[in-house]
Amino acid sequence: MRVAFLGLGIMGQRMAANLVKAGHEVAVWNRTPGKQVEGARPAATPGEAAAGMDAVWMCVSDTAAVEEILFGADGVEPVLTAGMIVVDSSTISPSATLRFAERVRARGADYADAPMTGSKIAADSGSLTFMVGASEELIARLQPLFDAMGKIIIRVGDTGKGQAAKIALNLQIALIYEGFAEGLTLAAKLGVEPERIVELVKASMVRSGVVEYKAPFVLNRDYTPNFPLRLMYKDIRLMLEAAKEVRVKLPALETVEEIYAIAEEEGMGDLDYAATLGLLEKWAGVAVKKTTA
Amino acid sequence: MRVAFLGLGIMGQRMAANLVKAGHEVAVWNRTPGKQVEGARPAATPGEAAAGMDAVWMCVSDTAAVEEILFGADGVEPVLTAGMIVVDSSTISPSATLRFAERVRARGADYADAPMTGSKIAADSGSLTFMVGASEELIARLQPLFDAMGKIIIRVGDTGKGQAAKIALNLQIALIYEGFAEGLTLAAKLGVEPERIVELVKASMVRSGVVEYKAPFVLNRDYTPNFPLRLMYKDIRLMLEAAKEVRVKLPALETVEEIYAIAEEEGMGDLDYAATLGLLEKWAGVAVKKTTA
Repeated sequence: MRVAFLGLGIMGQRMAANLVKAGHEVAVWNRTPGKQVEGARPAATPGEAAAGMDAVWMCVSDTAAVEEILFGADGVEPVLTAGMIVVDSSTISPSATLRFAERVRARGADYADAPMTGSKIAADSGSLTFMVGASEELIARLQPLFDAMGKIIIRVGDTGKGQAAKIALNLQIALIYEGFAEGLTLAAKLGVEPERIVELVKASMVRSGVVEYKAPFVLNRDYTPNFPLRLMYKDIRLMLEAAKEVRVKLPALETVEEIYAIAEEEGMGDLDYAATLGLLEKWAGVAVKKTTA
Repeated sequence: MRVAFLGLGIMGQRMAANLVKAGHEVAVWNRTPGKQVEGARPAATPGEAAAGMDAVWMCVSDTAAVEEILFGADGVEPVLTAGMIVVDSSTISPSATLRFAERVRARGADYADAPMTGSKIAADSGSLTFMVGASEELIARLQPLFDAMGKIIIRVGDTGKGQAAKIALNLQIALIYEGFAEGLTLAAKLGVEPERIVELVKASMVRSGVVEYKAPFVLNRDYTPNFPLRLMYKDIRLMLEAAKEVRVKLPALETVEEIYAIAEEEGMGDLDYAATLGLLEKWAGVAVKKTTA
């Protein structure tokens, strides 16, 4: 298939490369110029990348970026034609997704929200999990592209439901990690070594994919961004906005939002979100582990 | 060995039975009379059970119950002798544990805090995980008893550290479940079926032992108590008290405490703690799944 891939961040770059590898004809565009994908045609604007393609696949940072790509100057909208499919793998607002889809359909094109979960390693190896808001028929048409980038494709429901599921998952990641961070901090101040807590977590029902992945980095105080704090903070605000729109009360998440707000204010936005542990430690006057720099 | 087992609740009854099965001479006592363990000698008081035994193993509901057993009328203290070991598998205050241990040692006896993790199924099959606050030497002396009841024995540190680790683990369970409940509620109100969220959780790094265990019950709205809400609420207060003693700030847990307080006030104390989902649903005006009664 002919695909325009828009957004070459940590995930997007790897996903576009896998589309090329699977034999698709790929054009790429990135807001910040200079990023390339071998074997893909670089385009100067989203509209230029999208013109004449079968699908336009977006993987950018937030709702505003998707809106700009689709409907801004040099955007995709004017080149949309009947039969084209717009797919959004960004994590954005479910209600904005409904609006975007409606406007795309007014041009005769189709729309699927297909955010994904998985680390950059999964993006590299083409084994992402996609949660899709679209009809079965539309998903079938996209199957060759999903196959190139993902391993598990789950249809969650119609338009917007992929985004709803994604924020519900990230909400859980935020609270699982917050629990790990609060537990580690309390245990450390009570004199328990963090290695013992990690060992117990793994040996019990407390075990989780999140902590398994994060623990080695946390124990070494390595906050190199895998999922930058500012992006998790953005997602948390997205969850709370969506919750407000449909009148859902999320008490623990509201508290966690405050922690991320303070963390970002303290300049931690470009670290991994795991760095929120540092705030709890500071408030407690304890270090889970001395930085070995 | 000769063991007094004090406290025949969901876990204690199964643990005492495994001690008998392993060939130990067991005396049992329970605050509410009438509970028995086949092959064990029933005693009328903690002191009567403990007299002349090698070890006194406690598994009761809270700090006050442990204090009463050890130092109350008809308690264990008067019959403590040099060489006896008191072991506490309850989940209680780490700082109270230090005080209790000191008073036990004043009688020439030893003290180990050894709370455990694992379901009643693990208690049945003798495959609990114990986290122990005691010296290596003391743990070695208790090994035949640990072997009868558990599979993994982790030395966390000295006296009180077993309890510190246990509350740090339960803190994580409370926050993992709260995340699941908030995520489910938000997704449901956004029109996503809870089955899809559970499927995605399992296929992603969001997966956890907690949700794997709870999800089938939650999807069926079965809140039959495995870990009663009032006990989790008790543990949460324990965590916050311990945190206050050592000046640790646990923002998300403080919020979760409020939810459990309301849940107990609304008469949900004897349900499983999973029933806290019901409060979020009520506040959101949404049901994750209709009760199929």
